[in-house]
Amino acid sequence: MGGDFGPRVTVPAALQALASNPQLKLLLVGDPETISPLLANKNAEQLSRLQIIPAEHVVSNDAKPSQAIRSSHGTSMRIALNLVKTGEAQACVSAGNTGVLMGLAKLMLKSIEGIERPALMTMIPNLKQQKTVILDLGANINCNSRMLVQFAIMGAVMAEDVAGVKNPRVALLNIGEEESKGLDNIREAAMTLQNTSAINYIGYVEGNELLTGKTDVLVCDGFAGNVTLKTMEGAIRVILSLVKSPDGQKKKSSWLRKVFKKWLLKQILKRFGHLNPDQYNGATLLGLRGIVIKSHGAANERAFKAAIDQAVQTVQNQIPDRIAVRLDAVLPKSE
Amino acid sequence: MGGDFGPRVTVPAALQALASNPQLKLLLVGDPETISPLLANKNAEQLSRLQIIPAEHVVSNDAKPSQAIRSSHGTSMRIALNLVKTGEAQACVSAGNTGVLMGLAKLMLKSIEGIERPALMTMIPNLKQQKTVILDLGANINCNSRMLVQFAIMGAVMAEDVAGVKNPRVALLNIGEEESKGLDNIREAAMTLQNTSAINYIGYVEGNELLTGKTDVLVCDGFAGNVTLKTMEGAIRVILSLVKSPDGQKKKSSWLRKVFKKWLLKQILKRFGHLNPDQYNGATLLGLRGIVIKSHGAANERAFKAAIDQAVQTVQNQIPDRIAVRLDAVLPKSE
Repeated sequence: MGGDFGPRVTVPAALQALASNPQLKLLLVGDPETISPLLANKNAEQLSRLQIIPAEHVVSNDAKPSQAIRSSHGTSMRIALNLVKTGEAQACVSAGNTGVLMGLAKLMLKSIEGIERPALMTMIPNLKQQKTVILDLGANINCNSRMLVQFAIMGAVMAEDVAGVKNPRVALLNIGEEESKGLDNIREAAMTLQNTSAINYIGYVEGNELLTGKTDVLVCDGFAGNVTLKTMEGAIRVILSLVKSPDGQKKKSSWLRKVFKKWLLKQILKRFGHLNPDQYNGATLLGLRGIVIKSHGAANERAFKAAIDQAVQTVQNQIPDRIAVRLDAVLPKSE
Repeated sequence: MGGDFGPRVTVPAALQALASNPQLKLLLVGDPETISPLLANKNAEQLSRLQIIPAEHVVSNDAKPSQAIRSSHGTSMRIALNLVKTGEAQACVSAGNTGVLMGLAKLMLKSIEGIERPALMTMIPNLKQQKTVILDLGANINCNSRMLVQFAIMGAVMAEDVAGVKNPRVALLNIGEEESKGLDNIREAAMTLQNTSAINYIGYVEGNELLTGKTDVLVCDGFAGNVTLKTMEGAIRVILSLVKSPDGQKKKSSWLRKVFKKWLLKQILKRFGHLNPDQYNGATLLGLRGIVIKSHGAANERAFKAAIDQAVQTVQNQIPDRIAVRLDAVLPKSE
């Protein structure tokens, strides 16, 4: 149990998840001496669905992936991933070091046949009351066109099977809508997707369409995906801070203003508050033969619980199996 | 006079600019038969500071740069840039085809010594009541580390001489703050900037800091810059639309709610409304031996006037000269 705050956030979040889902069983991988006191006097029924798996070490947040992976034996992250590998767990949720988690997950769980590199994916709400699947969010900063096509296929599975969108529209993130725009890998991926009848490819989409629902799946390399997601989060956070305390206001707001501000904030939060990284959480590492969810390192209890919920949903929807089936149907067979 | 709307937007915008700046003289390059009727019965003093330069053609909005540049003779864009080249005009403002404008401007006006490729730059307001200079916004989708360093120097000149920031902080846009993060060109540029004492380099900054004022200058390649700017614009537009008409509201708002909504909208617009692309406008093509301002193609009158104002400011601050001086002082002399 790593992450910025460790068990003091993840343990209470685990208890919340157990309380809200009576089917759920959780294995807490970490230091028993830290975890046990946090479970004292808690609901016995919930505790009966929880088990501590001892781990001596935690992967450090600032460790370099290559080094950390080599010396990962005995870490909670490696033990948790191994539980998925052996089938003792159906999913792994981690708030730890992203680079190490991705590297170790790929090494231990292996990629689905047809996937060169797993991608980080999340679903964000859009103006059309639907969700937009976006990937990659930073697992791969250099992507060739084949990888982008694989991301498109995985994204379409998520949109269809999890977000419930029929024949989901798939777009490539680019800096213009004209065919001639963008980087070579994007243009090549566009050509492949145009000729892939199983994918409802709609063309290029620009960053300003992230929240409008113009597409159900937005495909990009991990650098651009990380930039667009973080920029969006930052802009929303800034606006929310402005609504909470608009600049230039007299220090004393009238009660009327206060009431109205509260109402308006509620309206905005209702629609987009979960885009504030304090409120929402959980990116799925798609393309592996097992389920791995990456939580924000700085996730609070509610946010970490959201990541556990996302793991449950991914298990219930059998996403890795569905991706494998779809890839088999869509991708040309290699010789 | 190209752009999405042509003279019917740009001519009234030009008249507004003349009205607000008694020193300004404008050359309108385009079809006299379209422009002249739009000037009928206008203020004689303003008209005395305006001259029509006939042009037979306009560069098409969807023309491919390479072709359009070859066949650009007689277009308003080429004639306007030539007026800058010959010194008859001190700046060129265009709402036309971005790719053609950049290519033609580079061909005709040439880059400043030490600049490999000009970059598109704009200044956006931040939470610290300052402006953040961001470049490149799409002129160069592939950038080597030298180009990023050149952008950093040009950005620092803008922050210091136009935004008025002393010893401006310069950062590279990246997907993490650790030194090991990101693409090779970014890491190489970071190493150079760390060793460039004339630049106050503060390290990597992520997309969520675009509006927070964590840095005065944000340097990136044109792909990432375009993605971050458009994502930010899109997020703000979505939130503004939500404030204007929150979802789930009863159709009839009470007068109180209306009054308060209006007040809150004003607060937000006051601080960030100009980030809505309907309201703000104008990216400077930095690194040329002349001044070229790119307006949004779909700019309205107010927005196109803002681009003219930006041209005036850039002329008054003698930006190309200042960049040349700074480059000469900072960059290592080539053998």
